[in-house]
Amino acid sequence: MLSTTQSMHFVAVLPLQSGATIRDYSLSFETYGVLNKDKSNAVLICHALNASHHVAGVYEGQDKSEGWWDNMIGPGKALDTNKFFVIGVNNLGSCFGSTGPMHVNPDTGRVYGADFPVVAVEDWVDSQARLLDAMGIRTLAAVMGGSLGGMQALSWALQYPARVRHAVVIASAPNLTAENIAFNEVARRAIQTDPDFHDGHFYEHGTVPKRGLRIARMIGHITYLSDDVMNEKFGRQLIAAGQGTAQRDYFYSTLEAEFQIESYLRYQGDKFAEYFDANTYLLITRALDYFDPARRFGGDLSLALASATANFLLVSFTTDWRFAPRRSREMVKALLHNRREVSYAEINAPHGHDAFLLDDARYLAVVSAYFDGVAKTVLA
Amino acid sequence: MLSTTQSMHFVAVLPLQSGATIRDYSLSFETYGVLNKDKSNAVLICHALNASHHVAGVYEGQDKSEGWWDNMIGPGKALDTNKFFVIGVNNLGSCFGSTGPMHVNPDTGRVYGADFPVVAVEDWVDSQARLLDAMGIRTLAAVMGGSLGGMQALSWALQYPARVRHAVVIASAPNLTAENIAFNEVARRAIQTDPDFHDGHFYEHGTVPKRGLRIARMIGHITYLSDDVMNEKFGRQLIAAGQGTAQRDYFYSTLEAEFQIESYLRYQGDKFAEYFDANTYLLITRALDYFDPARRFGGDLSLALASATANFLLVSFTTDWRFAPRRSREMVKALLHNRREVSYAEINAPHGHDAFLLDDARYLAVVSAYFDGVAKTVLA
Repeated sequence: MLSTTQSMHFVAVLPLQSGATIRDYSLSFETYGVLNKDKSNAVLICHALNASHHVAGVYEGQDKSEGWWDNMIGPGKALDTNKFFVIGVNNLGSCFGSTGPMHVNPDTGRVYGADFPVVAVEDWVDSQARLLDAMGIRTLAAVMGGSLGGMQALSWALQYPARVRHAVVIASAPNLTAENIAFNEVARRAIQTDPDFHDGHFYEHGTVPKRGLRIARMIGHITYLSDDVMNEKFGRQLIAAGQGTAQRDYFYSTLEAEFQIESYLRYQGDKFAEYFDANTYLLITRALDYFDPARRFGGDLSLALASATANFLLVSFTTDWRFAPRRSREMVKALLHNRREVSYAEINAPHGHDAFLLDDARYLAVVSAYFDGVAKTVLA
Repeated sequence: MLSTTQSMHFVAVLPLQSGATIRDYSLSFETYGVLNKDKSNAVLICHALNASHHVAGVYEGQDKSEGWWDNMIGPGKALDTNKFFVIGVNNLGSCFGSTGPMHVNPDTGRVYGADFPVVAVEDWVDSQARLLDAMGIRTLAAVMGGSLGGMQALSWALQYPARVRHAVVIASAPNLTAENIAFNEVARRAIQTDPDFHDGHFYEHGTVPKRGLRIARMIGHITYLSDDVMNEKFGRQLIAAGQGTAQRDYFYSTLEAEFQIESYLRYQGDKFAEYFDANTYLLITRALDYFDPARRFGGDLSLALASATANFLLVSFTTDWRFAPRRSREMVKALLHNRREVSYAEINAPHGHDAFLLDDARYLAVVSAYFDGVAKTVLA
């Protein structure tokens, strides 16, 4: 399946949760499959921290450019683009095409940098709704996302209940725990205290706070994986191990990477710092921190979810300690309390939070079966 | 109980695990209680990352200067200084008095900085054995430590089996997991990539890599606490909350601390960066990474512990995810396999790894009962 990125410009002011506004912005998006005549087969995919509108397929002539959920979405796949019209959209504030901190602020003529408005999950949903308006899509057969994308799917069901038939919320949570916020905060401080950050206006200084981005990504990677899978994949293996069977001595260095887990993390950090925008990292982690639909309801999640009318599929993974199964069960409980139709699968998988992006037969079968049901009811 | 710090100088060369040596070094230490006539009542306390020889008591005129294990050690306490002669010693490479990277290398006349030799847990034990030699103490009634200190206690029982009657290993592990190493590595990279680090020779530049130290400490604090206790202590509480009952809006800032957990971590990071030495941080985390007594035995912990002759008490805490109970059970199993006498307590405590430093009646009762037994057999 070939992918083509499109872009849509929005002139009108978008009011944001913070009280600020944004105008003259663009959203990058891709679509897969064909929108049917009554426009009832659209499925919106919401992305997490380090992803984009490029959800499925490959770009022409670039065999290795699979979208980030290509194992899930495509012709004959769990979310079957022979049946559904799938939309991937890049969030406002991202660094993969949609308007973000590296673009020019129309109010000042200067690059936004740190002045890009703080965007909330609810703002992303509002901006996605406008995109659907422009495409003439009134109602989504489904909205689906994992992690931060799952928060957007949940928020869709709350902000636009009449426009969502099904919400698929994977490896997500109704808000972040203190520990989640803590990891985000350490990553942010690493970026913000990098001398190359220049209070977020590093573009003008011709610098990139790569040190901070590297640290942020290393922390992220630790929390995406489970202790189990780290032990299985890396354990205490030394870098030079595997060359013969002789047990080599330690290097006895505090500077050189000694264990394979160290060089893996350094590599991931280096790679990330080459392409990810530091201000985007701050914005997206803050959107995660702020999401908390129960907040306006005194912390009562059942009350908060009362406005949802969609049917739900929730999926969690046993070794995911970033968004643990108990967080999904909180949502399931609150939805059941509101007599919503809810399917829930807790997948026994060793891969931690990353599992939602990986091939796992049981997981894909659950999603596939759910969308078979969606097709039967929504497309009937 | 009043504490007095002493220091002992060692001229002779100490061979290190790395193959390097160190000479002309000093160890800071404190003692509590009275050494009995046959010198059979000595208990050595080994410290963890951020601690020192100041284990118990207070300094004259400084009421708030309690030692880091003052709730455990003193007259009438779990480790009763009316019965035992307790020794606290600061490790080589530390920044609290013993010779470390901030001192002058006698070989070059320059401050060690990054040239301070990499020290292993086994090296600390060797240096502590020399201190005991100088004090005329041949056999320890017990050696005790928590976390990295527990690794030293275990290593004592392996390196000097004839000199240890009892080993008390608390909240520890027979080696670090990949995830443990990963957290250490992120902290080290934060320090090493701070422009003020100057490849470890920052003393000569008149700088301190405080940015890196702050990040390192923030990461550390997250891993010392449990998710549960973080949620209970901080949850999603905002900084300005508690001033009236009105729910305030978010600040909508990526830079300002918004949640209480953020300001807590920033405060801890700032405080730590004011007093802790960056090179010491690197050395101590590396000693943690390297410790792995089973390594020379093809990973077989039972074989590795076969040389121990001491009796053991091990304690772990249910919510400690840094050194989880299963790591203590590995050691218990290996010791039982060698028909050693082992007591083991798994304390149901909400405080994560930090629990080993806190007042917990059941925990202190277990240690107290164990030392009652030690007193009966060793001091009889």
